[in-house]
Amino acid sequence: MASSIFSDCSSARLLPLRLALLPPRPPRLRLCPALPPPMRLLVAARPLLLPRPHRMDSPPAATASSADSATVSADMPAKVIDGKLVAKQVREEIAVEVARMKDAIGVVPGLAVILVGSRKDSQTYVRNKKKACEAVGIQSFEVNLPEDSSEEEVIKHIASFNSDPSVHGILVQLPLPRHMNDENILNAVGIEKDVDGFHPLNIGRLAMQGRDPFFVPCTPKGCMELLHRSGVEIKGKRAVVIGRSNIVGMPAALLLQKANATVSIVHSQTKNPEEITRQADIVIAAVGVANLVRGNWIKPGAAIIDVGINPVDDPESPRGYRLVGDVCYEEASKVAGAITPVPGGVGPMTIAMLLANTLESAKRIHNFN
Amino acid sequence: MASSIFSDCSSARLLPLRLALLPPRPPRLRLCPALPPPMRLLVAARPLLLPRPHRMDSPPAATASSADSATVSADMPAKVIDGKLVAKQVREEIAVEVARMKDAIGVVPGLAVILVGSRKDSQTYVRNKKKACEAVGIQSFEVNLPEDSSEEEVIKHIASFNSDPSVHGILVQLPLPRHMNDENILNAVGIEKDVDGFHPLNIGRLAMQGRDPFFVPCTPKGCMELLHRSGVEIKGKRAVVIGRSNIVGMPAALLLQKANATVSIVHSQTKNPEEITRQADIVIAAVGVANLVRGNWIKPGAAIIDVGINPVDDPESPRGYRLVGDVCYEEASKVAGAITPVPGGVGPMTIAMLLANTLESAKRIHNFN
Repeated sequence: MASSIFSDCSSARLLPLRLALLPPRPPRLRLCPALPPPMRLLVAARPLLLPRPHRMDSPPAATASSADSATVSADMPAKVIDGKLVAKQVREEIAVEVARMKDAIGVVPGLAVILVGSRKDSQTYVRNKKKACEAVGIQSFEVNLPEDSSEEEVIKHIASFNSDPSVHGILVQLPLPRHMNDENILNAVGIEKDVDGFHPLNIGRLAMQGRDPFFVPCTPKGCMELLHRSGVEIKGKRAVVIGRSNIVGMPAALLLQKANATVSIVHSQTKNPEEITRQADIVIAAVGVANLVRGNWIKPGAAIIDVGINPVDDPESPRGYRLVGDVCYEEASKVAGAITPVPGGVGPMTIAMLLANTLESAKRIHNFN
Repeated sequence: MASSIFSDCSSARLLPLRLALLPPRPPRLRLCPALPPPMRLLVAARPLLLPRPHRMDSPPAATASSADSATVSADMPAKVIDGKLVAKQVREEIAVEVARMKDAIGVVPGLAVILVGSRKDSQTYVRNKKKACEAVGIQSFEVNLPEDSSEEEVIKHIASFNSDPSVHGILVQLPLPRHMNDENILNAVGIEKDVDGFHPLNIGRLAMQGRDPFFVPCTPKGCMELLHRSGVEIKGKRAVVIGRSNIVGMPAALLLQKANATVSIVHSQTKNPEEITRQADIVIAAVGVANLVRGNWIKPGAAIIDVGINPVDDPESPRGYRLVGDVCYEEASKVAGAITPVPGGVGPMTIAMLLANTLESAKRIHNFN
């Protein structure tokens, strides 16, 4: 995996940010001629996901001390934030908590997934979620409905899960078939089981001081968890979020703001994204444009969280393409203080956070701490 | 009024922004020794509040062409955005629309205000709202409850207004007595009559792309209206909001972001507020610290909207104090391209926007365009 994340960004077209919303197509990239030195893995010792780690029965898996993580190499100064390892650690912590809850009050957290239609990618996602649930002891419920189902049928199943006490989280796999209104369907999910955290009421509570959302949307929550566990200080820091989608960019900005960063959102209408990004101690890139963020956009020592997962042509790969982030990793990793790779950075965190939200929901519903 | 807004900021303590949340106390300021030249008033010709101004029976009151407003004086380059005049213009437009609605479908918009206790300032605000309603033809309803009322009593009155078809907007005057939970009471207001726009569901819809709030909170809406009517371009511009309160700063930032500005929020934890503010083409200051924003914080030509209303000691005033904004007007007006005075800037817009929201609500409920 390590080798596949490096690419030579110099030959990539630098897409203007305003083109970011056009339908994606793989840009052609040359492979990096020489592989860089092996990544140094960084996982901070303190687990921040669970409020009371001292209650856990076993210590977190692989960890490195923050002193160790401060080492700097001339060739590759950035510490690599290994999302795969952090996600594994989070899942292990969740498994411990799920077992503790079952032992204490006999309740097993439950996640219901509703899949409409037979898209191969959606089926894979749903299968992965199910597996991830099973691995940590969360019960999973699944409903598969045919492509031509009516909105009413989907909503009927949601209503049934809303009132089912063994279900603590409900997830409707997106995208839905075109004849359905996403908003109507997502709004049918009870706010106290909306583990995706996309309900406007939830987003409003996320935006407001003195209010807390029921759930933090999974991918932005994963970004914050990576920052926290890597020991990146947020309070008082300049943060730039590139992209303002409802599911990543906007909630990520609200979370950074809640954590007392000074936040700027860069988007398709921003005239000088590189200049603004260069001021940031923390960058979250979530715009969906391969290698948009170049090395000269990065402030030396900044922490870079790359949410983008973009396919680019790669004749040397068996699949003919490979995945790169929104950040030109090869360039940025020479300037940044810490950086997530793609794949293996934010990606694995999303499902881990979905499990965390489901556990959190079960704890809240059953008033279990 | 014009003379009272100028002050010599040089003698004012420059409060660190992190002190902004401390209880306010009037800083001592010397009066400006010489009065500056008379303000030039700026009101752009196009009314943006009402979707179809061509339907209005009479043209807006005092207006100046945008060519006129571009004149620059060496002594006092900033165009003064006269909120009193704009608010008057808005109220006149609302009166025309209220009359048109009554003529067409026989519906009169209604605003209900609930006042608990007998705070003098709250009584004054409620009286002013009532007068403003009467002046534009909006029917006002009022309930005065004693200080020691229970939460249940207040909520009972809210419920009654929620179901009253002649009421289109409900406003609970804040602050409420200490024994009441603001959140419980405000959440009782039906979302479709929440003309204050403070409900988290509303804020969430404001934050999300592709969603629209039922109502935009009045003061931030007033800020945007002043920018629009002054011909300030927002799309693609850098905007800085100073302060992140739920009722002004945060929703103002969301509105600027929805209008495609690149927005940064500066707050009490921001380390270099002046440096960030100096990058902004548009500044909305809403932090509640007298004269915090100095001339050297301002980018030449920027548009400055000053929401602050802070009392400062003034022995020469009959009341012993006078009101100044968060922006040091005397300094900023020499650098900015356009600026709101205090008083007479954002202040008068808040009630005007409350009337606008009430009208909008009545139109929506009765499907009237």
